[in-house]
Amino acid sequence: MAENKNKPRVVIVGCGFGGLEATKAFAGTGVEVTLVDRTNHHLFQPLLYQVATAGLSAPAIAAPIRHLFRKQPNVTSLLGEVQDIDPKARTVHLKDGTQLPYDHLVVAAGATHSYFGRDDWAPFAPGLKTLDDAFEVRRRILLAFEQAEKESDPKAREAWLTFVIIGGGPTGVEMAGTVAEIACDTLPGEFRRIDPSQAQVLLLEGGPRVLQAMPDSLSERARQQLEKLGVRVRVDSRVVAIDAGHVQVQPATGEPYSIATRCVVWAAGVAASPLGRKLAASTGAEVDRAGRVLVEPDLSLRGHPEISVIGDLAAAKSYAPGRDPRPVPGVSPGAKQMGRWVARNILRRVAGQPTQPFRYRDYGNLATIGRNAAVVDLTTPAGQVKFSGFFAWLFWLFAHIYFLIGFRNRITVLIDWASAYWSKQRYARVMTGVDV
Amino acid sequence: MAENKNKPRVVIVGCGFGGLEATKAFAGTGVEVTLVDRTNHHLFQPLLYQVATAGLSAPAIAAPIRHLFRKQPNVTSLLGEVQDIDPKARTVHLKDGTQLPYDHLVVAAGATHSYFGRDDWAPFAPGLKTLDDAFEVRRRILLAFEQAEKESDPKAREAWLTFVIIGGGPTGVEMAGTVAEIACDTLPGEFRRIDPSQAQVLLLEGGPRVLQAMPDSLSERARQQLEKLGVRVRVDSRVVAIDAGHVQVQPATGEPYSIATRCVVWAAGVAASPLGRKLAASTGAEVDRAGRVLVEPDLSLRGHPEISVIGDLAAAKSYAPGRDPRPVPGVSPGAKQMGRWVARNILRRVAGQPTQPFRYRDYGNLATIGRNAAVVDLTTPAGQVKFSGFFAWLFWLFAHIYFLIGFRNRITVLIDWASAYWSKQRYARVMTGVDV
Repeated sequence: MAENKNKPRVVIVGCGFGGLEATKAFAGTGVEVTLVDRTNHHLFQPLLYQVATAGLSAPAIAAPIRHLFRKQPNVTSLLGEVQDIDPKARTVHLKDGTQLPYDHLVVAAGATHSYFGRDDWAPFAPGLKTLDDAFEVRRRILLAFEQAEKESDPKAREAWLTFVIIGGGPTGVEMAGTVAEIACDTLPGEFRRIDPSQAQVLLLEGGPRVLQAMPDSLSERARQQLEKLGVRVRVDSRVVAIDAGHVQVQPATGEPYSIATRCVVWAAGVAASPLGRKLAASTGAEVDRAGRVLVEPDLSLRGHPEISVIGDLAAAKSYAPGRDPRPVPGVSPGAKQMGRWVARNILRRVAGQPTQPFRYRDYGNLATIGRNAAVVDLTTPAGQVKFSGFFAWLFWLFAHIYFLIGFRNRITVLIDWASAYWSKQRYARVMTGVDV
Repeated sequence: MAENKNKPRVVIVGCGFGGLEATKAFAGTGVEVTLVDRTNHHLFQPLLYQVATAGLSAPAIAAPIRHLFRKQPNVTSLLGEVQDIDPKARTVHLKDGTQLPYDHLVVAAGATHSYFGRDDWAPFAPGLKTLDDAFEVRRRILLAFEQAEKESDPKAREAWLTFVIIGGGPTGVEMAGTVAEIACDTLPGEFRRIDPSQAQVLLLEGGPRVLQAMPDSLSERARQQLEKLGVRVRVDSRVVAIDAGHVQVQPATGEPYSIATRCVVWAAGVAASPLGRKLAASTGAEVDRAGRVLVEPDLSLRGHPEISVIGDLAAAKSYAPGRDPRPVPGVSPGAKQMGRWVARNILRRVAGQPTQPFRYRDYGNLATIGRNAAVVDLTTPAGQVKFSGFFAWLFWLFAHIYFLIGFRNRITVLIDWASAYWSKQRYARVMTGVDV
């Protein structure tokens, strides 16, 4: 308990991209940081779909938080879940009874997947936010092929071999492309009674196109690349019901229909952490429809300059000089930039200086579609640069490996990938916790 | 369903070392093999303790079974749990209702850990047989340090930092050495309120020495190496009770005493799979006290030459010319040799030739004790060769990596290990499924 009572105490809730960068930005400063997370690891979420599709092992994309900050002596890392925040007493309460008093609070609790009020769909269509989610999805994908091999009824076998991915954002596109590759490239030759390449992969999107954050032309390229892999892309297709064996679809025009399937992945919606609404209730802050907390230009709460909200939990805006404020997209560069920004603002407050409005730098957008294809939309000083295909995939690969935390992880991830690329095999085809 | 009705049908239950080798040995022969396992992977169990101690990821030691046999077209691999065996109808019944008729049956269902009739200890002292077991142990070890960091009561903190390993066989010795290294080499510097190197690791053994399968001198070397790592080795110490916070110990001489601990690992006893007793009941075979099935010299059952039992499930003997039959030790080379032998015997029966009594070749014994030390006892034509220390560890390392299945795994395991060796870090410090 070597805490210095005179030093400003900063509590940071959540060690996603936002909390991680904020904590890092306090290195070598005169504040005491306490970092709380529900897990013991920072998760590199952009590659979580690779764990779910057996391409990477969990440790390849998860770095122990306290290891990351071992050389930053002003950081105390705690495993715990926040129960509540008391803005009057300036104290964070953990579920296990621990109380953490703060002078400055950064809430970076992130988002979870949302079923738009249909939480009863959750058991039939797991989402993809945590490692446990990824293991569950991996188990279901691998198990479906195993069950198909044992199934003698053709109808039932077809349902086991039908994979439905709901949601045409980056996660849905990446999942659909990879499941199609598993069926067509990885598994053929390993079964004796079924032909895995007969599996059907459907990508359902409620809106008019996939990757809606991308320009039209790249959405179209992504759709073409998916279809080349054998994915059936159905846009303007809203899911209206899910049960243990079916997904019910309502197209924008035409009759509703049902898909018989035993493996559904939910990649459709995210909602801010419930901590946002709790915080709003106790501070008087407002939340938007997705449960994100509305913040001031400097990312703090109105009337509570000592509390900031960042990352996916914040409905934040970017204030570039001479431009109208623009919403910050819910992507990892946004969270990282907010993390660094909020640390700087806290240090300014500690130094008695005014805080500064957040400014987001948009470097562009990218998504991958399987082993060889991706779409990239870069924002450069010279304007937008768009490209797709193999070079976009290489760009995507190196960008992701570069940003992966830790030298070790990068090397093994690179080896796993290189080997997966040449052999078309997937390294982590392990199911656990299966009751057969 | 391309099965040829005229070909002899071999069903193999279990894809541990025995089942794996038997299946391989049928490559290119005129029999149809169906291989059933409860999991989708062959597990390299000698390194399971590395997964439990966060040194390796699960996929590094688990190879998908159907991938291993993709190029052996006479093998059908099925995921399933055997419910029962009907020797009259010559049919294996799976829990999901699947029926597998056989002409020849190889039962290689292995062993599980046994609490010597005290199954109520299981929740407090997980064993180490499956990947799920390893995840559970990993979670408990990592969680104990996390909880200690949050605990303010010194007594309670000490209990979180006390690790008890029960059983002084190879697994117990490997676990104790590695937990001590985690405490002293990996974690220091990462905590702010506790000193991980103050953790106590106790290894309890009921018998008079650790590694009882080894010569006396190597047992003594192992004890010394463990104590150098800080492990307290207590032999002649029988565990008489375990609950959520204590282990009760009865020494051979002296008063019983209690150890306050929050993390206990069970490495003390194994029992044969319950399938052994079921099989005995329906075939009239006998089982020994550990539940292993007594087999004929050729590994088949008396009165049922079409059923063989191998590996840890068999109480088998080795028949060397000019020597008394000797029990085969429950180690992986034993299971592998039985697997190959039983396949040969089945092929002899198919060809109308007499079967041959099993002969076990003993190449020796080895165990590791942490990062730098091991004990090796080799059986060579020139007699026994014993050595210990760093070169024993190198020998152990390369032997294990050599036997790991698949080129890919070997490379990444080697990298993970080399990096763990130089950095003293452990790659896979990820907990999942934690409710904090």
